[in-house]
Amino acid sequence: MLSAVFLCASALLSAQTIQLPTPLRTGGKPLMDALNLRQSAREFDSAKSISNQTLSNLLWAAWGFNREKKRTAPSSMDRQEIDLYAVTKEGIYRYDAANNKLIQIVAGDYRKESGTQPYVGEVPLNIVFVCNKSKINSKSESGLIEATYANSGFIAQNIYLFCASEGLATVVRASIDKAKLAKVMNLTDDQLITLAQTVGYPKK
Amino acid sequence: MLSAVFLCASALLSAQTIQLPTPLRTGGKPLMDALNLRQSAREFDSAKSISNQTLSNLLWAAWGFNREKKRTAPSSMDRQEIDLYAVTKEGIYRYDAANNKLIQIVAGDYRKESGTQPYVGEVPLNIVFVCNKSKINSKSESGLIEATYANSGFIAQNIYLFCASEGLATVVRASIDKAKLAKVMNLTDDQLITLAQTVGYPKK
Repeated sequence: MLSAVFLCASALLSAQTIQLPTPLRTGGKPLMDALNLRQSAREFDSAKSISNQTLSNLLWAAWGFNREKKRTAPSSMDRQEIDLYAVTKEGIYRYDAANNKLIQIVAGDYRKESGTQPYVGEVPLNIVFVCNKSKINSKSESGLIEATYANSGFIAQNIYLFCASEGLATVVRASIDKAKLAKVMNLTDDQLITLAQTVGYPKK
Repeated sequence: MLSAVFLCASALLSAQTIQLPTPLRTGGKPLMDALNLRQSAREFDSAKSISNQTLSNLLWAAWGFNREKKRTAPSSMDRQEIDLYAVTKEGIYRYDAANNKLIQIVAGDYRKESGTQPYVGEVPLNIVFVCNKSKINSKSESGLIEATYANSGFIAQNIYLFCASEGLATVVRASIDKAKLAKVMNLTDDQLITLAQTVGYPKK
């Protein structure tokens, strides 16, 4: 009985949390070459999935820790208010950068809800940028918006350059039904969706 | 007399416009290494200047053309509404990416006016990000702010990674007396300062 409970809990854990492989923190194309290749793509190979190793590298490049408490992108006053969510065929996951894990928030395929563009439902990965407003102690709503959109931009550009280096296709997207997506993601009023970014392999 | 006029006009032209050397569009540290080194620095070697070749490479990395009409960073609906200005000891210059030139807007040392931080007056380079609001045909002021701060963030992260790759020190800054700086730069009501970024060599 005890072992059955243990097995059940273990299966539950594995469904809800994905331990990502350790990200590679070296290598890739020379920076200027990656910048030279940087572009937006809106056609993806829907049949080709992204491996967990590539996903781990991508999320670390985007917003991982490159020092004990600091990250690959800056944030205003070091508030680190952005969370990245991975929306895949299997579910919606929050990237836990400190532990290199994906924490499942919702099970099921909600890719279509991650944007208004026709391709979002077919691609292996949509990344949704969410600001935790309580972490930004801004004097004004406009100050908060300015800061968190700039901070989202820093991270999104890391994803662009990672994709340029790895031969992946990507596009950052602002056209999102935010109210609908926030509901699907069970976000609180304190959480604000800023941007989304689609990643996949280029259409052949 | 005619040759004196010609010489005078020529000297004026050379004072106002700097033709930058062709930027290097290849090389640099591997991308993941640059991401691993990415950090903000607030101490600079005030004695060490930045060469025109490095400046050309930096501005191209930030917001240069990597295709005929497209750039190293994305912008919402491809509106390319951001202009970068270089604030140096000699003056304030607008980066003309298409022609790889710096167009002098103001002569003189206005580095102190580029931010509220104590170091800005001593560093070789402050870059000021300016949105041309007329290029963004947004339905709302908040939509414009969201878009142009995200777009500024993409560019700023390119500068961070270029500096990480080249051993330069940099920090992006939001604390700017924007009204004062806009006056010094002779900006119109249609131009909005979003961010600034300081670049120099690290303090030994």
